[in-house]
Amino acid sequence: MTDSNWSVPETAVVDTIRETVVADEPAVLATIVGVEGSAYRQPGAKMVVGADGDGVGSLTAGCLEDEVRTLAGEVLDAGEPRIETFDLTGDDDVWGLGVGCNGVIRMLLEPLDDSLQPALDAAAAGENCAVATVLESDHPAFALGDRLCGREGRFIDTEGWPTALIERLSEPAATLSAAGKADTIDISLEAGSVRVFLDGIAAPPELLVFGTGHDVRPVVELATLADFQVTVVGFRGATATAERFPSADRVISTSPTAVREEIDIDERTYTVVMTHNFVDDRLTLAELTQSATPYIGLMGPTDRFSEMLDAFEAEGQTFDRATLDRVYTPIGIDLGGGAPYQIATSIVSEVLAVHNDRTPQHLSDKDGPIHERLDRDTAGE
Amino acid sequence: MTDSNWSVPETAVVDTIRETVVADEPAVLATIVGVEGSAYRQPGAKMVVGADGDGVGSLTAGCLEDEVRTLAGEVLDAGEPRIETFDLTGDDDVWGLGVGCNGVIRMLLEPLDDSLQPALDAAAAGENCAVATVLESDHPAFALGDRLCGREGRFIDTEGWPTALIERLSEPAATLSAAGKADTIDISLEAGSVRVFLDGIAAPPELLVFGTGHDVRPVVELATLADFQVTVVGFRGATATAERFPSADRVISTSPTAVREEIDIDERTYTVVMTHNFVDDRLTLAELTQSATPYIGLMGPTDRFSEMLDAFEAEGQTFDRATLDRVYTPIGIDLGGGAPYQIATSIVSEVLAVHNDRTPQHLSDKDGPIHERLDRDTAGE
Repeated sequence: MTDSNWSVPETAVVDTIRETVVADEPAVLATIVGVEGSAYRQPGAKMVVGADGDGVGSLTAGCLEDEVRTLAGEVLDAGEPRIETFDLTGDDDVWGLGVGCNGVIRMLLEPLDDSLQPALDAAAAGENCAVATVLESDHPAFALGDRLCGREGRFIDTEGWPTALIERLSEPAATLSAAGKADTIDISLEAGSVRVFLDGIAAPPELLVFGTGHDVRPVVELATLADFQVTVVGFRGATATAERFPSADRVISTSPTAVREEIDIDERTYTVVMTHNFVDDRLTLAELTQSATPYIGLMGPTDRFSEMLDAFEAEGQTFDRATLDRVYTPIGIDLGGGAPYQIATSIVSEVLAVHNDRTPQHLSDKDGPIHERLDRDTAGE
Repeated sequence: MTDSNWSVPETAVVDTIRETVVADEPAVLATIVGVEGSAYRQPGAKMVVGADGDGVGSLTAGCLEDEVRTLAGEVLDAGEPRIETFDLTGDDDVWGLGVGCNGVIRMLLEPLDDSLQPALDAAAAGENCAVATVLESDHPAFALGDRLCGREGRFIDTEGWPTALIERLSEPAATLSAAGKADTIDISLEAGSVRVFLDGIAAPPELLVFGTGHDVRPVVELATLADFQVTVVGFRGATATAERFPSADRVISTSPTAVREEIDIDERTYTVVMTHNFVDDRLTLAELTQSATPYIGLMGPTDRFSEMLDAFEAEGQTFDRATLDRVYTPIGIDLGGGAPYQIATSIVSEVLAVHNDRTPQHLSDKDGPIHERLDRDTAGE
């Protein structure tokens, strides 16, 4: 773990935590468990700090990381979890930096151990998982750091945990793990109350890229960085090799008509069709429109898709609006720029926006106080 | 030059051409000089093919590259430039691939020599440059491949070229080189006519990133891939090092109030402010609003900018709408996703959109025949 790994894709952070646990290396896991006001990262953001003080993952934009490293050393020595609160509201003098995060960040720091492993194994297997960790308790049976892991919405190894607590956590665990979000839940039991941090780690969304042309690699590269699990699908074997797409999670060679048979495609599988072969693209499209994919990005001009629809129509096949709404062609967000990585940026942006249910627009164009302020300031002009 | 370099940023293609010329290695330059109908790349797209047949740069999505490699070998042997036409309209059987590029591509293939060097040197120095190449001529003094180079809108080494021709080319050369576009120009002279391919190679736009936090590296990385010349600006020295930002073009350490004094900022310089330090951000903003930059992306929530405006107002400084319109905060296109590379994707997308004067939206939402078709198909429902 070196300094150069601080900003990495989130999937790489989870992978690193698992590798560290499996290798039984001494390390501390720092997790944001609470945020009040505005902060750079949300609850669930993680950083793992090794015994050498180097870290992977980011909790802030760098303003607290030195502090976290120091604390991590203390936690490693003490061998006990602890919670730290960083108050960044207003008083810039405290940090001497004017960090501008007007928030309070609560952080759980714990010696990394195998209590996390069931969840990490689930994540590695491409499942949604959840980690429930006791933050506070006046219940005699529970202490800070006590932990339950869940995979695909079900808690495992629940021996010794009250049924009422498991029942109270199950539904939010399923929701949070599917969404990749975290929350804090207070539970009152007869013998006392327990505050639990429930951390959902969603399986990364999948991106299938159909095609093996020279323009595919930049898409694979940028989508991997943006936390997609990327599969390249080639149709004639020769160029569909792992060497050609080193950052792809897997490379598959099949035939266009066998796509649904060979590959699981669900509502978390995004698809980009860029074989540059009219027939292959059309056969792939025929398969994808019958799958649950929410996004079919098709490279090529509108006229080409129009020709494709003509060809389908000639075979008696038409599509309803809901199906056509899942087809994005020409592919990508309108950013201009025709160089390979500019096109790839436009494609990956579109997949991200669809995945997160956003309307592509400048964030500054969302109505907010600045515009109101401006209108007020200029009202008298 | 290996196969892994085919899809690279455009700036890397120009760099490779220059390195090959300087090293005097045998190679062939293939340039698209004409497109009819729809094609993957536009005129000016370049690929350099070495004596070993490996290439850098892309002319199509891979459908013609094998053919171009074969032709390059012939051109290298013959030592003469030639023009090839690839007709991809309709008849898919010709290429057996259904490439779906319903266009005709004309390509100039030439043995790479130092006739390009003045333009390449200009590009390396960050200047706009232009290359004028004779494609056809019935004028006795001109033949295919004859070449003139221009930098910053002025042709150099013009000895032997008719003044009328230079005059006819000068204005389009300035326009095309600033825009990074190419065009074909027919010129009638007394002794005959000349068809010239005028290839403008714009200096890459610059991106200044203010800040050295862990979230800066992903922005630098993605912006570099998207063909920006990236400078990281740090304010306290310690973390503003080239080692920390290996893909940055340069790393500068200065103070917020010296920004305009130390760095040239013109209308092709885009700026991202992400020091996470309220005071530094505000002082930087004060400098940038007085510069010609068309884009000031400011990281942080709207409230934070509002506080900044309060602080300016307390000092008696207000901003007009044109100035505030250049400030994009919260920074980025609304793509959702809070992981470091997702945020960086959102930022680089926004800079690209502003640079290319685009409104961020799905390309498929631009009104086109598909939607008309759909409305026609469903009109009777």
